Amino acid sequence: MTYPRYTDLLRTLPATVPFVGPEEQERERGRAFGARLGANEQNFGPSPKAIEAMRDSAAEIWKYPDSTSHGLRRAIAETHAIAPENILVGEGIDGILGYLVRMLVAPGDAVVTSDGAYPTFNYHVVGFGGALHKVPYNSDHEDPAALFAKAREVNAKLVYLSNPDNPMGSWYKGTDIVTAMDDLPEGCLFVLDEAYVEFAPEGTAAPLNADDPRVIRMRTFSKAYGMAGARVGYAIGAAELIKSFDKIRNHFGMNRSAQRGAEAAMRDQAYLAEVVTRTATARERIAGIARENGLRPLPSATNFVTVDCGADGDFARAVLQSLVTQGVFVRMPGVAPLDRCIRISAGRPEELDVLAKAMPKALADARAR
Amino acid sequence: MTYPRYTDLLRTLPATVPFVGPEEQERERGRAFGARLGANEQNFGPSPKAIEAMRDSAAEIWKYPDSTSHGLRRAIAETHAIAPENILVGEGIDGILGYLVRMLVAPGDAVVTSDGAYPTFNYHVVGFGGALHKVPYNSDHEDPAALFAKAREVNAKLVYLSNPDNPMGSWYKGTDIVTAMDDLPEGCLFVLDEAYVEFAPEGTAAPLNADDPRVIRMRTFSKAYGMAGARVGYAIGAAELIKSFDKIRNHFGMNRSAQRGAEAAMRDQAYLAEVVTRTATARERIAGIARENGLRPLPSATNFVTVDCGADGDFARAVLQSLVTQGVFVRMPGVAPLDRCIRISAGRPEELDVLAKAMPKALADARAR
Repeated sequence: MTYPRYTDLLRTLPATVPFVGPEEQERERGRAFGARLGANEQNFGPSPKAIEAMRDSAAEIWKYPDSTSHGLRRAIAETHAIAPENILVGEGIDGILGYLVRMLVAPGDAVVTSDGAYPTFNYHVVGFGGALHKVPYNSDHEDPAALFAKAREVNAKLVYLSNPDNPMGSWYKGTDIVTAMDDLPEGCLFVLDEAYVEFAPEGTAAPLNADDPRVIRMRTFSKAYGMAGARVGYAIGAAELIKSFDKIRNHFGMNRSAQRGAEAAMRDQAYLAEVVTRTATARERIAGIARENGLRPLPSATNFVTVDCGADGDFARAVLQSLVTQGVFVRMPGVAPLDRCIRISAGRPEELDVLAKAMPKALADARAR
Repeated sequence: MTYPRYTDLLRTLPATVPFVGPEEQERERGRAFGARLGANEQNFGPSPKAIEAMRDSAAEIWKYPDSTSHGLRRAIAETHAIAPENILVGEGIDGILGYLVRMLVAPGDAVVTSDGAYPTFNYHVVGFGGALHKVPYNSDHEDPAALFAKAREVNAKLVYLSNPDNPMGSWYKGTDIVTAMDDLPEGCLFVLDEAYVEFAPEGTAAPLNADDPRVIRMRTFSKAYGMAGARVGYAIGAAELIKSFDKIRNHFGMNRSAQRGAEAAMRDQAYLAEVVTRTATARERIAGIARENGLRPLPSATNFVTVDCGADGDFARAVLQSLVTQGVFVRMPGVAPLDRCIRISAGRPEELDVLAKAMPKALADARAR
């Protein structure tokens, strides 16, 4: 008999990793990146008040965290004018997605997403034995009508859509999402990932009642709030659904300082507004760099710009490879036809200088293949 | 049709929480505890170098964490003189136990533990539909022979034992554990939880080859290293088992500052030794307080003292309730006959002053029921 005796499901799973992190790439390269523009981090950093809160709480790290995230949930509730009972705090959206899939998806259960959308959601679905059904993007947008139709066809338990979209940066008006939900099949929970919504035009967040049982919305401190390393996300949903997470979640799983930092960040909406402005400036600069090099930047409601390299996936991969070699950490969509693009995060001005310098050679390298 | 359509398993799960945290109790009480002695935290705090590392990294929290925990795993590997391939870093032992149970336990699979041992392990087993079999303690010790015999009888996939034990503080020599493993049934993975081992006498850690496929050992930064709020634990096991966690774990789930802090803490073994000395002093003080009040402190190889209140569970619960009312946060074993005891963590001198003052009234209150 062999050790250990894994479940049948575990044996079928690939040993894949959703993403290779920049630190790992730096170790392989043997040197640091000059521009960190690949993970849609918020390179301007978090609110100084959040930094201060984390520093102040470092000496108290000997205490276990508050398992109810009381203060943080109150801060979130006040900002959104909803009840704390509609809010789940978890270990990033990634952690919350894992719990959610575990709660709903038994082996063989159908789940629907877009072909090329967030890989970590797929990772969780496959990890719990779900049957993943993928719908193509429509003109670089996720396609709610097609997603919900597919969900009906396969009797899906979950359907995922991000608005704004990652990796394409496209978006819908929140009211259009709500209207589209009229065709959501009964019993299929809609996972609306609004990780980037703070960067988006007014009216992008779906105007939903927090107690709407059809939907769970995902938000995060990793993007606009600049705290990706803290691992704090939250979900907004019906109180009964939120309470159900208590059956399985890691109750003492949140880092104590991270909770303090996130609470301070949430209470500093003025800093958030400043970040959104700086991000818009960076986005314009990236779009300009793309145009100067004859490439087409796609419109974006996020903190990244997806740049159409104007040819096929092999060409875009060659552009990306040259950028990486030149010390620019970037990523790209993994699936055709999205993979004609590369995705560049809104970095600091000095990082965009590095990008501007590297881009002409990247294109030359790709063309010289 | 109702929303959402949970799995059959999820519907059967109770909405229990393994522990109610002290902050939650403080909110219910309406005032703070004067002594925080209930969660076996390390109240002297982490190494100043760990605090410094966390403070220094606060401003870089905008970066996602290193998904491979490269630096931290190297520090752990060097301390234990084993390979990084034998080390998994995870979100506390709680998080790692959850992943482990998920990898091995399908609904109906048997798992063995002691009746009264760590509730969060049981929480994970039940949460994945495992069939939990419990073996009684033997003279306030977990009983490896009985555990392994039960594991053979029920064809268990996992058997859990903590050494030193929580909640009783008892322990075995590491060599005795290894000898007992001769009777571990084939194919049953042994989860050896050594969360408290740094406090224990020399020779308590099991002298096992890191690549032994029969066992996975759990260690943590929450206890002796004083970083419970950081959520950093690690497992030592065969490289193939460690690698399997990559199939399901939340790859970017570790807090970035916590990883830096833990690395600094691991590299400050001198501070660890100091903490162990201070903890031993606190343990003696708690034992003295118990004796002065006519109670019997059990021997302990941990950072807590389990105190036999000399009567039944109701009496001990009354003692505990009075202590809590008097501002002393303590906990107690949940199962007879262990529940004749209360469990008191090794706090700072001023906290033990609060305990010393409260104890006579607690006993008077319990006797006056």
